[in-house]
Amino acid sequence: MSKERISFASDYLEGAHPSILKRLFDTNMMQTAGYGFDEFSESARAKIRQACEAPEADIFFLVGGTQTNATVIDAILRLTEGVIAADTGHVSLHEAGAIEFGGHKVLPIPHQNGKLTAAGIDAYVKGFYADGNHDHMVAPGMVYLSQPTEYGTLYSLKELTAISKVCREHHLPLYLDGARLAYALACRENDVTLADIARLCDAFYIGGTKCGALFGEAVVFPKHDFVPHFFTITKQHGALLAKGRIAGIQFDTMFTDGLYEKIGRTAIEAADKIRGVLREKGYQFAMENPTNQIFIVLTKEKCAELAKEVELGFWENVDEGHCVMRIATSWATTEEHVDKLLEML
Amino acid sequence: MSKERISFASDYLEGAHPSILKRLFDTNMMQTAGYGFDEFSESARAKIRQACEAPEADIFFLVGGTQTNATVIDAILRLTEGVIAADTGHVSLHEAGAIEFGGHKVLPIPHQNGKLTAAGIDAYVKGFYADGNHDHMVAPGMVYLSQPTEYGTLYSLKELTAISKVCREHHLPLYLDGARLAYALACRENDVTLADIARLCDAFYIGGTKCGALFGEAVVFPKHDFVPHFFTITKQHGALLAKGRIAGIQFDTMFTDGLYEKIGRTAIEAADKIRGVLREKGYQFAMENPTNQIFIVLTKEKCAELAKEVELGFWENVDEGHCVMRIATSWATTEEHVDKLLEML
Amino acid sequence: MSKERISFASDYLEGAHPSILKRLFDTNMMQTAGYGFDEFSESARAKIRQACEAPEADIFFLVGGTQTNATVIDAILRLTEGVIAADTGHVSLHEAGAIEFGGHKVLPIPHQNGKLTAAGIDAYVKGFYADGNHDHMVAPGMVYLSQPTEYGTLYSLKELTAISKVCREHHLPLYLDGARLAYALACRENDVTLADIARLCDAFYIGGTKCGALFGEAVVFPKHDFVPHFFTITKQHGALLAKGRIAGIQFDTMFTDGLYEKIGRTAIEAADKIRGVLREKGYQFAMENPTNQIFIVLTKEKCAELAKEVELGFWENVDEGHCVMRIATSWATTEEHVDKLLEML
Amino acid sequence: MSKERISFASDYLEGAHPSILKRLFDTNMMQTAGYGFDEFSESARAKIRQACEAPEADIFFLVGGTQTNATVIDAILRLTEGVIAADTGHVSLHEAGAIEFGGHKVLPIPHQNGKLTAAGIDAYVKGFYADGNHDHMVAPGMVYLSQPTEYGTLYSLKELTAISKVCREHHLPLYLDGARLAYALACRENDVTLADIARLCDAFYIGGTKCGALFGEAVVFPKHDFVPHFFTITKQHGALLAKGRIAGIQFDTMFTDGLYEKIGRTAIEAADKIRGVLREKGYQFAMENPTNQIFIVLTKEKCAELAKEVELGFWENVDEGHCVMRIATSWATTEEHVDKLLEML
Repeated sequence: MSKERISFASDYLEGAHPSILKRLFDTNMMQTAGYGFDEFSESARAKIRQACEAPEADIFFLVGGTQTNATVIDAILRLTEGVIAADTGHVSLHEAGAIEFGGHKVLPIPHQNGKLTAAGIDAYVKGFYADGNHDHMVAPGMVYLSQPTEYGTLYSLKELTAISKVCREHHLPLYLDGARLAYALACRENDVTLADIARLCDAFYIGGTKCGALFGEAVVFPKHDFVPHFFTITKQHGALLAKGRIAGIQFDTMFTDGLYEKIGRTAIEAADKIRGVLREKGYQFAMENPTNQIFIVLTKEKCAELAKEVELGFWENVDEGHCVMRIATSWATTEEHVDKLLEML
Repeated sequence: MSKERISFASDYLEGAHPSILKRLFDTNMMQTAGYGFDEFSESARAKIRQACEAPEADIFFLVGGTQTNATVIDAILRLTEGVIAADTGHVSLHEAGAIEFGGHKVLPIPHQNGKLTAAGIDAYVKGFYADGNHDHMVAPGMVYLSQPTEYGTLYSLKELTAISKVCREHHLPLYLDGARLAYALACRENDVTLADIARLCDAFYIGGTKCGALFGEAVVFPKHDFVPHFFTITKQHGALLAKGRIAGIQFDTMFTDGLYEKIGRTAIEAADKIRGVLREKGYQFAMENPTNQIFIVLTKEKCAELAKEVELGFWENVDEGHCVMRIATSWATTEEHVDKLLEML
Repeated sequence: MSKERISFASDYLEGAHPSILKRLFDTNMMQTAGYGFDEFSESARAKIRQACEAPEADIFFLVGGTQTNATVIDAILRLTEGVIAADTGHVSLHEAGAIEFGGHKVLPIPHQNGKLTAAGIDAYVKGFYADGNHDHMVAPGMVYLSQPTEYGTLYSLKELTAISKVCREHHLPLYLDGARLAYALACRENDVTLADIARLCDAFYIGGTKCGALFGEAVVFPKHDFVPHFFTITKQHGALLAKGRIAGIQFDTMFTDGLYEKIGRTAIEAADKIRGVLREKGYQFAMENPTNQIFIVLTKEKCAELAKEVELGFWENVDEGHCVMRIATSWATTEEHVDKLLEML
Repeated sequence: MSKERISFASDYLEGAHPSILKRLFDTNMMQTAGYGFDEFSESARAKIRQACEAPEADIFFLVGGTQTNATVIDAILRLTEGVIAADTGHVSLHEAGAIEFGGHKVLPIPHQNGKLTAAGIDAYVKGFYADGNHDHMVAPGMVYLSQPTEYGTLYSLKELTAISKVCREHHLPLYLDGARLAYALACRENDVTLADIARLCDAFYIGGTKCGALFGEAVVFPKHDFVPHFFTITKQHGALLAKGRIAGIQFDTMFTDGLYEKIGRTAIEAADKIRGVLREKGYQFAMENPTNQIFIVLTKEKCAELAKEVELGFWENVDEGHCVMRIATSWATTEEHVDKLLEML
């Protein structure tokens, strides 16, 4: 990793938002209980409950996204059930088989711009039970989606409401992966609030790692005791922090004085600026989305040229001469970096 | 968790050693690659290889102890193999079934002061293969021990050498859990160095969480490629940090200018002082050990009295009127706290 | 395996009771549905429900004992729960880790003549919840016992009733492994009927493989829908027979005209006769039990001598000069064989 | 299941080929060792080795297809590997998640008439390693195919040779599911012998359950010790028969005097006759294949009419008015039944 180049390769290139580090510093020598029973974690939980308008919510702080997905999904599904996900979903492709390691099949549905649709889920479930042979098959046991999606796209409130309705009709818990949730919440196009998510989903997580924390994801079960013994399940899955407060302090800070919103806004403003210039200059977008990830098609020559001074994220090859590159902004993106990038493009 | 009381309940009551936090601060806005491919992690690996005199070692930074044990054990064992451990071992009792979740049985052997013996392992393995029926049983596939043990005791170099020899005779990889390794290394009684461990074991981890880090354990495989694809296995087990540098920076700091040794020394000096006074005052030790955990028998009245001002760790009940309490010191233990404790005792 | 020698090495040395084979022959060319939806399986279920006085029972026919134990236990336990068993229990020792393969820990309790006691279970569970740390441990989630036990001993009705009571107080499903149940039911000492078992247990299986069938175990859940989707769980565990009728026909035959009782009686009469003579001749029993397995201590010379004409089952070495051998009788044991054995002893 | 109707719903409607039952009868009272160490199993192994021209092959007798697939795949794959299969493969769809229960992902590739192609496998593997991110993904670890396929189609020798070559280039073990292998071997169109399969594959099974046995599948590993400890793995997976001879006797019989070939021929001759008449009468085939399963499109009225006297297997709905039905022939299909069916069509 070069110090000379600037990088837009991902949204987890730096440490943590300075306010978080400062808070860790200020509280460092206080003695607290372990495993999340400390006062900071309690305070963070109270603030998240309020932000979600979910006063009874059970909240747990885990370490990373794949770990969180595997632990929550494994905790919810029964033995012979699988999880419905978009075929582009993180659990479908990029978790090295963590869901299968827990004994469960991912049931992929073709995506629409990275998203599931209520109709698609409904058709899948009805088709499953229409098949006379379904007792020999993995039954759909829950639905996984991500907001924003792996393609950076967003579910509208209408879409999420429809999906939630279909899930409840079929008694399928709905789980939302919010690894980059701050960046969804900060978009002008977004009309889905944390309270909406808490009302429409049975489980979700508010991402920390990619939204300004050193690490950490806050799992929220809006209904109390929705998953009994989740604490022990996190221990069994290697997801329980001895110094639970380190996650608690980070989330407490992110949910104080609107920091989580601010983190999102910084990234989205930078992304919008970049998108505007790219559009003006006639660049081709591999997909349209309003969040902090921009996917553009570049010639390989352009890629090589850029690579000297700005690192972008390689996404995939299009053909011999072209590839898709990702430009990711974050809470840490500076105007200076944006200007330098735009100059190069 | 009371702010008024001081606590000796565990060695993970505070944040991190100030040098670690400072380093996180100083490096915070640098951009680096994710998943441990950053320069800090590389630097930490180089320093650990040197400290272990293991120039070819593969080194990975994971998050916590249970996660590390489960990931390493699962990576080493074959389908129908189990891990030999003391019946008091952390993997036997206090990991909520994480080893079994990975499909493997823990094969417990009665402990001797928290320790396995070479003779005990040898007898177990020979007994196993003497039984005509062993093809219907879980075969011993590796050996797990902890240094210091869960009882705070230490393996001597002679003991560890003998165990290593038996393991190699039986082709059983030897894995050492060093959750509190800094406190072992700092004991006067200790004659086992990091280089000895690297020479005698096939895998081990150098504990960070309980030895001054915010979190983090450094897994060392002294022989290169001893476990192929361990990177992907950590991802699958939810043990891969996106911001891998956060662990790397911490270990790089701990292995700079003798910090890891210093952390251990602080704790052991405090523990030795406490032990000395306790002995003078005629307290009964539940078990003798030279490390940072002191287990004493107290009357329940004494416990109640102490609890008002000093928190100790409850270990177990002895009888109606007595219990065993743990006094744990750490890198963060201050003279002031020690004096206050001794005053109360 | 010698054709010249006779063998008492186990109770699964021959094919099937002739009535079973005959029935398979008679029904062979009939066409039936697969997977246990055939009329023979239905008829067998009806007869077993009647014999168990459990009109609502769900009944499934599986293939073998280890498979049945793993499937039932896995179906009942939650993620972080384990199964309490005697340390001599089949699931504890001789199933090659099948329970752990399913993700669950066996929680062994020291046996009393191969048996659990109500007091032992109660103490274990209370001790578990008394430990402040139990959220980091595998919780007891059910109780496994075998009737007869691996030592050939029997639970009395009083003992089983007490165990059932303790289990229900602690909300622990009670599961009985009846691999050799026919031999328990046929003992004079036995006072536990099939109806008692169905009343006192939440799940049990009636053994076929060791009691005269080619293979097959009948799993009984006395309460309807005690384990939802058990059919699919058997499929997932590789325990579902395509030609389910082959198991159904066998159980239908065993539960017609008292065949299952008769099978047990043949074995027990032979065992009682052997035991009587052994006692007269002053042989030392390794353990006392009233069922079809006799465990005696022999000198190694005697073993070698016997081995020329009668095969016994090696159990374990006692010391340099002595070992424990098993004499097993079965539905297939003939008077002629018994007489020849007794002549040799 | 009606006794009045005749059925072509599947190829496991009856018991076993009479020669098999007779042999079980004749050997019934012989005493043999358990777990497949008997003389019949040894004899069957010798005959299969000869038929496969694989003198060093390791051979194991398991009970059913799903169990066999799960056990073999789990035994071959490493932790983070998955199995490539056609998206129509039995392991992909109809095993209730047995592969995932063992911790592994099925990696589906779009089928061509139910088949994989060498080019498709090659492209998948190359694409996988071309993706920079593959360390976060499940790696292809072996290839699964079935002969005949779930659609009744056959791999030609040329196709299987090409697939084997690609697998060996990529170091991927090739596993062939021969649940209905007898019916493949008996087709005029077939040019793949058992010896070819043994030469081109690393593991395969010769189906018994659907080819005339009561139950049983013979797993063949052409290279000795290709999977160490497979015996214990079968025990752990609940796939080890106590009375192993029951499977051994069946396979010994099927591989004596060409019975396995004869079983296949009976079914194929019946199927060819039915296919010929259907073609003449202008019926539409849902897919073309030369084996014992015929898939035709029928109007729902025709289905209802047929159902009164002949049971066919429902496959899937095409539209409101049409569905695909399966006609399966077997070793047990009689001319009389075929004539009755053709009369009805």
